[in-house]
Amino acid sequence: MNGESSRPPALGFASDNIAGASPEVAQAMIRHSTGQASAYGTDELSRQVTLKLSEIFEREVDVFLVPTGTAANSLCLSAMTPPWGNIYCHPASHINNDECGAPAFFSDGAKLMTVDGPSAKLDIARLRERTREKVGDVHTTQPACVSITQATEVGSLYNLDEIGAIGEVCKANALGFHMDGSRFANALVSLGCSPAQMTWKAGVDALSFGATKNGALAAEAIVLFNPALATEMSYRRKRSGHLLSKMRFLSAQIDAYLTDDLWLRNARQANDAAQRLARGLAGLRGVEVLGDTEANILFCKLDSAIIDALLKAGFGFYHDRWGPNIVRFVTSFATTAEDVDHLLSQVRGVVDMLRA
Amino acid sequence: MNGESSRPPALGFASDNIAGASPEVAQAMIRHSTGQASAYGTDELSRQVTLKLSEIFEREVDVFLVPTGTAANSLCLSAMTPPWGNIYCHPASHINNDECGAPAFFSDGAKLMTVDGPSAKLDIARLRERTREKVGDVHTTQPACVSITQATEVGSLYNLDEIGAIGEVCKANALGFHMDGSRFANALVSLGCSPAQMTWKAGVDALSFGATKNGALAAEAIVLFNPALATEMSYRRKRSGHLLSKMRFLSAQIDAYLTDDLWLRNARQANDAAQRLARGLAGLRGVEVLGDTEANILFCKLDSAIIDALLKAGFGFYHDRWGPNIVRFVTSFATTAEDVDHLLSQVRGVVDMLRA
Amino acid sequence: MNGESSRPPALGFASDNIAGASPEVAQAMIRHSTGQASAYGTDELSRQVTLKLSEIFEREVDVFLVPTGTAANSLCLSAMTPPWGNIYCHPASHINNDECGAPAFFSDGAKLMTVDGPSAKLDIARLRERTREKVGDVHTTQPACVSITQATEVGSLYNLDEIGAIGEVCKANALGFHMDGSRFANALVSLGCSPAQMTWKAGVDALSFGATKNGALAAEAIVLFNPALATEMSYRRKRSGHLLSKMRFLSAQIDAYLTDDLWLRNARQANDAAQRLARGLAGLRGVEVLGDTEANILFCKLDSAIIDALLKAGFGFYHDRWGPNIVRFVTSFATTAEDVDHLLSQVRGVVDMLRA
Amino acid sequence: MNGESSRPPALGFASDNIAGASPEVAQAMIRHSTGQASAYGTDELSRQVTLKLSEIFEREVDVFLVPTGTAANSLCLSAMTPPWGNIYCHPASHINNDECGAPAFFSDGAKLMTVDGPSAKLDIARLRERTREKVGDVHTTQPACVSITQATEVGSLYNLDEIGAIGEVCKANALGFHMDGSRFANALVSLGCSPAQMTWKAGVDALSFGATKNGALAAEAIVLFNPALATEMSYRRKRSGHLLSKMRFLSAQIDAYLTDDLWLRNARQANDAAQRLARGLAGLRGVEVLGDTEANILFCKLDSAIIDALLKAGFGFYHDRWGPNIVRFVTSFATTAEDVDHLLSQVRGVVDMLRA
Repeated sequence: MNGESSRPPALGFASDNIAGASPEVAQAMIRHSTGQASAYGTDELSRQVTLKLSEIFEREVDVFLVPTGTAANSLCLSAMTPPWGNIYCHPASHINNDECGAPAFFSDGAKLMTVDGPSAKLDIARLRERTREKVGDVHTTQPACVSITQATEVGSLYNLDEIGAIGEVCKANALGFHMDGSRFANALVSLGCSPAQMTWKAGVDALSFGATKNGALAAEAIVLFNPALATEMSYRRKRSGHLLSKMRFLSAQIDAYLTDDLWLRNARQANDAAQRLARGLAGLRGVEVLGDTEANILFCKLDSAIIDALLKAGFGFYHDRWGPNIVRFVTSFATTAEDVDHLLSQVRGVVDMLRA
Repeated sequence: MNGESSRPPALGFASDNIAGASPEVAQAMIRHSTGQASAYGTDELSRQVTLKLSEIFEREVDVFLVPTGTAANSLCLSAMTPPWGNIYCHPASHINNDECGAPAFFSDGAKLMTVDGPSAKLDIARLRERTREKVGDVHTTQPACVSITQATEVGSLYNLDEIGAIGEVCKANALGFHMDGSRFANALVSLGCSPAQMTWKAGVDALSFGATKNGALAAEAIVLFNPALATEMSYRRKRSGHLLSKMRFLSAQIDAYLTDDLWLRNARQANDAAQRLARGLAGLRGVEVLGDTEANILFCKLDSAIIDALLKAGFGFYHDRWGPNIVRFVTSFATTAEDVDHLLSQVRGVVDMLRA
Repeated sequence: MNGESSRPPALGFASDNIAGASPEVAQAMIRHSTGQASAYGTDELSRQVTLKLSEIFEREVDVFLVPTGTAANSLCLSAMTPPWGNIYCHPASHINNDECGAPAFFSDGAKLMTVDGPSAKLDIARLRERTREKVGDVHTTQPACVSITQATEVGSLYNLDEIGAIGEVCKANALGFHMDGSRFANALVSLGCSPAQMTWKAGVDALSFGATKNGALAAEAIVLFNPALATEMSYRRKRSGHLLSKMRFLSAQIDAYLTDDLWLRNARQANDAAQRLARGLAGLRGVEVLGDTEANILFCKLDSAIIDALLKAGFGFYHDRWGPNIVRFVTSFATTAEDVDHLLSQVRGVVDMLRA
Repeated sequence: MNGESSRPPALGFASDNIAGASPEVAQAMIRHSTGQASAYGTDELSRQVTLKLSEIFEREVDVFLVPTGTAANSLCLSAMTPPWGNIYCHPASHINNDECGAPAFFSDGAKLMTVDGPSAKLDIARLRERTREKVGDVHTTQPACVSITQATEVGSLYNLDEIGAIGEVCKANALGFHMDGSRFANALVSLGCSPAQMTWKAGVDALSFGATKNGALAAEAIVLFNPALATEMSYRRKRSGHLLSKMRFLSAQIDAYLTDDLWLRNARQANDAAQRLARGLAGLRGVEVLGDTEANILFCKLDSAIIDALLKAGFGFYHDRWGPNIVRFVTSFATTAEDVDHLLSQVRGVVDMLRA
């Protein structure tokens, strides 16, 4: 619980980026806003964050904090892909649709090669095949790395076996392996595994460890499991304008985020809210919940009357983007049971009316 | 005064980026950390910031908030320079020395053409000459824009006539005109002119309006006076990873920074501290203050014994970078009279000892 | 006829780039190899080439000669596409498969958006739809231009109505329109229309006018119908290393190519050879000619025994790339009736044997 | 001698790129213009060229033929420089002044750092100093490679000791070493050393081996002494549009160029012509020969009356670019003794008139 129970129910279910920050994160920023600290990440707090992440991942890691997920993804990809390289990703991936070509910008031209598959997850057999095509053919861009999103853009999850299988494909073909973890915590608590299992133990080389969507204001950690990528990364980050002078403000966010398991608690709250919503919608007339709700994103098909009524009542969500009457609800660390119940009561109201 | 009088004197004079944030800025971020707001700068607060800056600059402006000065500078330059363009700047400029090639990265290859001049300021006659060379010659990169830093990297200022004269050169040759204003407020209060006079009225097209060094945590505003640059800028910002999803956190900083003249008060405090330091050092044996102290940076030549004593006492500052025994002190919005007096008393202590 | 009748039959049908040069082209190069001429395209012969192309296209055009089709295509595309732009093309297009990412390199990151359709031709309805998606959405790369290949990579042709319809889509959405004409002449003589009709009258802005595959050694002409693209093109060409100092050697090739309709005669010979081959193969047992043979490329399905026998006899061609037993034969300006008949007699030999 | 004695004297001394091709080169192209050959450099002739260059350089080398010097230089540099790298070169270098930013384009943003020195040659002490500055400092672009031109843009030469010393600087700092050899042969015959001595034995990693200026039409060879650069180079060449499909036409030029020492004979003729010119001008009234004439470029100071008379007589050359009355004459493989004597007689005519 984020102690926001006294406020009126929140109506926004469009994305987890409409939420603010966890109080712990906000307080940490205040706490670190006075006094002097050395700049550009050479401060003590930034050092602590690297140590904390090394502990969490059960090994030494290189950490580069940046303010956005687009920066984290693109920097990771550019460190593993030459300008003539192929980045294999799902057609529905954020890097393919929602970053205005950032991967090509940061990598100086690399090509996104989409590999389809159900639930916004790469079809591994097809990936294996694609990554073996035209290797060494000078007329064609060359396989360089694979990027998966965990949890995916539709809220589905790769299980450990699947991640491991992709890791095997990468290893067999000397490809880099990137994980876009903008909802890393949501995936982790849902799978119930360790951060190490979900990443480097399965072959991941570089992780965009998301915090912004799950309680931070604007902070993501690039976590490198392949130490060969680190030196280059420091120049790439600076050169793209993502090395903050007062770095402690990023470090303060991530530090608070990792302290006392805030990141895991936040993710559980978001996931629980989505589960509560799924349970509440299940079986209602005019409502069809689509797929499993594995993280904090729920897709359903709603009768038009329900959609109209919710919009009229001020609720925010995307609909009719993925097909007629398809609705996406996204919960966050700030979504309370009351928020969900308020939404459900509205839906039930319409359902009752429709039935009458 | 930032109400920090009860703390022990601060010892850091290395840069204004070692300071934290103004309490007003920190409080604004807390205030805006709860509740829902639409993402990516479509929130009300972000709209307010644009209006405030339009008021301050006495005309409609386009505003793009970004977390770093490197991003602000490079985005401005890239919007005014084709990949085969020349950016004229001073050899001592931040864009030339301290951004790891960011201008070339963002512009896909543009060339920095350095034009020297005293006090880190462009020699205008030489600039005029250089920008007319080889125009239209397909073998050579082509004049595209001019960038000046105000206040400069050594704390000197362009006066209004000088800015206007550079603006004339730009206009006559159809060049863009960029101002790196990472210390914009320090320059403004020192010159005692209006923001409009120091920028678009003198021909500036695009401004990096700095806030980080002067009281924000990590926030700069790209302010465009040439509306033709705006559409392209929105794609460039997104594509480089500088469009924050929870944009309100940048907006909150800039909003607080502009409220009740905080930005001007902060700049005055920093400049006053530098003046106080200059006055205190003047005439001391073993000390030679170099040049005028127009903003918040002071250069002086100190006897080695003084340098050693200060370092030993824990003071932080750069020395012997610009010549033997040359010392640079930078003050900030957080530097108090007490901080300065503490430094001065240490210097005087050594001076007395030396004399004895 | 290229007067090569006394030589033994040529066995290569793999591509039109295995042929040499037309004697007229080779002689022109010799003729222009002595004496002095001003460099970098400022010579008289280069001026003549532009005039000739203006005549052929019935309007003033801007011409930029380059040594390769990849350069021609990428330069055209980069002049019409910002780094965050989309280039719509067929999945089978040369720019998508065979240029090692050159369009992304020259455009500093633009994205190839494939639009499928039968016979390697864009489905126009789908193109219309795709180019209207997410326009103005800052999160997504933006529609910038359309590229078609005429004749296509499989030897099919867009008719004038189809080109005009694509031109309409481009006009309606303010997109650039590029034609990869590496086999421009083959398409032209097959359609029997004028160069103007097949290009700017149908809305084409920039053409890669191919000569290398059809009788030149290494020479392509960028022909611009949109004069706004010309200034920028001159810098782009130089900067990519495609402005030859002894430009007359490119000009001499194109000049000879255009003189006395050599380019049209060559194309007719290549197309006729393909037709002769199609007629000869039709109805043979173990042979199925696929699709129409509109230009100089023929696809067929051959019994494995035929393929093996041809390979054994030294013939060169691609097979089993587009499906089991699918064979591609490409003829050129240098392919004689004797060459075709020799191939046919070999095929018939196997067919007879199989029947026996 | 190029057997052109029956023609009227040539008047062009502006550059060696106004000459045509050696008859041997032109004939070779004709010879190879018929018949079929496999494309993209997989033909036998291309293999032969690599073997010939390996012999000439007394070791195995990787060879990549390209049509221009700008391409050769930029490809070499990009293979040795990350986008945040520094390329150290002379302010007068071709890569700095005459390639429209090609090195930045091919390298995705690398920075040219000029190191001055007399006679267009790098001051080695200064180079040593510059390449040690700010190494590892993330705020600054990083030392990556050194590029020298041999012979230089003003016709001067680095001797073997000087090249070796620069090689030492490169080795000590792990920098790549590139030689722009657009006038490689002119330098070689003047120094009287072996190709190996002038390159890899002195530490050169990558050479732009020029042929165009010295008898070819449009052909340069990238010669790599560092095998680690080769794989990447093949993609870079293709991606920049410099892999010719009918590669044999580049190979034919280089093959003829290297056969029977044509390249050395041509260079000697050019150098001898420059020497003849220097001797003829020496001591004339109103004429001052500047510096040594080590290759095929001669600088002198001429009385205005002489300049005017020569221009009026139709001679072509650059003047007043490097200072008032400074004239540059460039000779080439096609410059005959008669051409030189004709120029000299004109000069003497004016001198006599002036004296009268």
